Amino acid sequence: MKYLFTNIIGSFVLDQKLEIVDSILFKTVKEYKSKDECEERLKSKHTELESVPKEKMYEVLKIFKDKKYYPEFYQKNIILTKECVRQAVADDWLIIQAIANINELDKSTNLLTKRLREWYSLYLPELDQKVGNQENYVELVITKSKEELVKEFSITESMGADLTEQHVEEIVLLAKQIKELQQLRSIHENYLEKIMKKYTPNLLELAGVTIAAKLIELSRSLKRLALLPASTVQLLGAEKALFRHIKTGSRSPKHGVIFQHPLIQTAGHKNQGRAARMLADKLSLCARLDYFKGEFKAPDYRKMLEEKLK
Amino acid sequence: MKYLFTNIIGSFVLDQKLEIVDSILFKTVKEYKSKDECEERLKSKHTELESVPKEKMYEVLKIFKDKKYYPEFYQKNIILTKECVRQAVADDWLIIQAIANINELDKSTNLLTKRLREWYSLYLPELDQKVGNQENYVELVITKSKEELVKEFSITESMGADLTEQHVEEIVLLAKQIKELQQLRSIHENYLEKIMKKYTPNLLELAGVTIAAKLIELSRSLKRLALLPASTVQLLGAEKALFRHIKTGSRSPKHGVIFQHPLIQTAGHKNQGRAARMLADKLSLCARLDYFKGEFKAPDYRKMLEEKLK
Repeated sequence: MKYLFTNIIGSFVLDQKLEIVDSILFKTVKEYKSKDECEERLKSKHTELESVPKEKMYEVLKIFKDKKYYPEFYQKNIILTKECVRQAVADDWLIIQAIANINELDKSTNLLTKRLREWYSLYLPELDQKVGNQENYVELVITKSKEELVKEFSITESMGADLTEQHVEEIVLLAKQIKELQQLRSIHENYLEKIMKKYTPNLLELAGVTIAAKLIELSRSLKRLALLPASTVQLLGAEKALFRHIKTGSRSPKHGVIFQHPLIQTAGHKNQGRAARMLADKLSLCARLDYFKGEFKAPDYRKMLEEKLK
Repeated sequence: MKYLFTNIIGSFVLDQKLEIVDSILFKTVKEYKSKDECEERLKSKHTELESVPKEKMYEVLKIFKDKKYYPEFYQKNIILTKECVRQAVADDWLIIQAIANINELDKSTNLLTKRLREWYSLYLPELDQKVGNQENYVELVITKSKEELVKEFSITESMGADLTEQHVEEIVLLAKQIKELQQLRSIHENYLEKIMKKYTPNLLELAGVTIAAKLIELSRSLKRLALLPASTVQLLGAEKALFRHIKTGSRSPKHGVIFQHPLIQTAGHKNQGRAARMLADKLSLCARLDYFKGEFKAPDYRKMLEEKLK
């Protein structure tokens, strides 16, 4: 009776004294992946091959600590590990990076738009109050001159300083940059929607891009999201309020990031808790459908929820 | 004996009973500014004109609460105030806005570059460690493909995932955006230097753009900076450490934003306190020269400091 043992260097046939009798060495890591084939070849040459019993495994492993094998063993293992790491980059990661990036673009845009408002207000302070929307404000600064704006918003006797072209130009440059940041955000959002449509169609359909991506970000992967109980999904993003509730006994939070969902927004104050619970329930189901490659059921869920919450 | 009284509506001659005997009304706010001329004209017409004594002022002012005068008085005052506000926008404000804007561009660039490094590391994680400089990293991501980078930095068996063109494109778009933010920063810095050269040549020459602008920002105006004692200028930007020193008796700070100045950086640890004191001294003088439109003495000061700190 002989033993068959395979590791990343090759397939080995050992006799009862644990000495190597026969072997097929793998030249590359690729060959290791088709190890079954090599094992078959050895099995057809030697009869009565068995796998190494547990109690002898320690000694067998010791053989490969030998200088003859160890460096190769070490290097091939690193290559294999690197390959595993490389393949571990799932769509999860791309989604998480993309949504984190969108959040940071938003932060930057807000920071710079606040500065733009303050800076441009030296020139035309009245515009700040008249235009609340950030994007509109930026657009107006870029496209219209002070004279045009004064006319459009019927501003009489502006308190703004008469800055020369040189100064105004710098402010407009900032505004243009902000506009580009806004455009990049929408490009990234389209991209995010595209990859999510492929990867988590159900979750995307029921939750919308932003909420779906945030849920994946907060739970760190689609797998973990699928395994979380619905009650946890309901509170993802409300951790602070939850721990405050546990610590001080304040009221428990009703919803985390799913709060922004239109179904909850339109539910009315009294029904929000109920709506959040039901939505989280279905979102959890969607995550499971997506993770285990199930059917596309999200539209049915949405209809169900809409009817119940009417 | 009669009284002469002038306000924004006009110049009035009042008799002893405080009734208006004669007047020149101003049609516009501009005429109010040449009020001396009108007063002269009235003085030549009426002899023995005096200004209203304090005890009668209250009654005189009451006259102009009359419906006949008040609306005009009110409106003209608003116009005048708006004009004052408009003219109060000095170069100080532009400098403060510009330096604040540069700081915020830096913040945004840092935030987004950190994200870029994390995102691109899914694709080629080895680059992150090999390239420390932010600008170089961004440039490499834009201009070189993964294959070129692997060759250039002799990376063997990258652990990065093989992302398709669609994904890499999004990352490169972010990198391009960051590069534009960096370019905008240097445009703004040039602009800042240009306006400071005109407004505070001495301070700019001795302190450099960034430190000079920060000093003005921290002291809120060149005027206030000129009036601050040199010891305060030395500690501008080190308020936190100063109050900690006062409260807890920890060691007193030696320098605020002037710490970044090359003269202090090269002074050696033992001499830094002395260097900071001397530099703050000269900077304070520079601010005063600039505020009171003095000579251009900064190069002499610089030479003096360099010799003393050798």
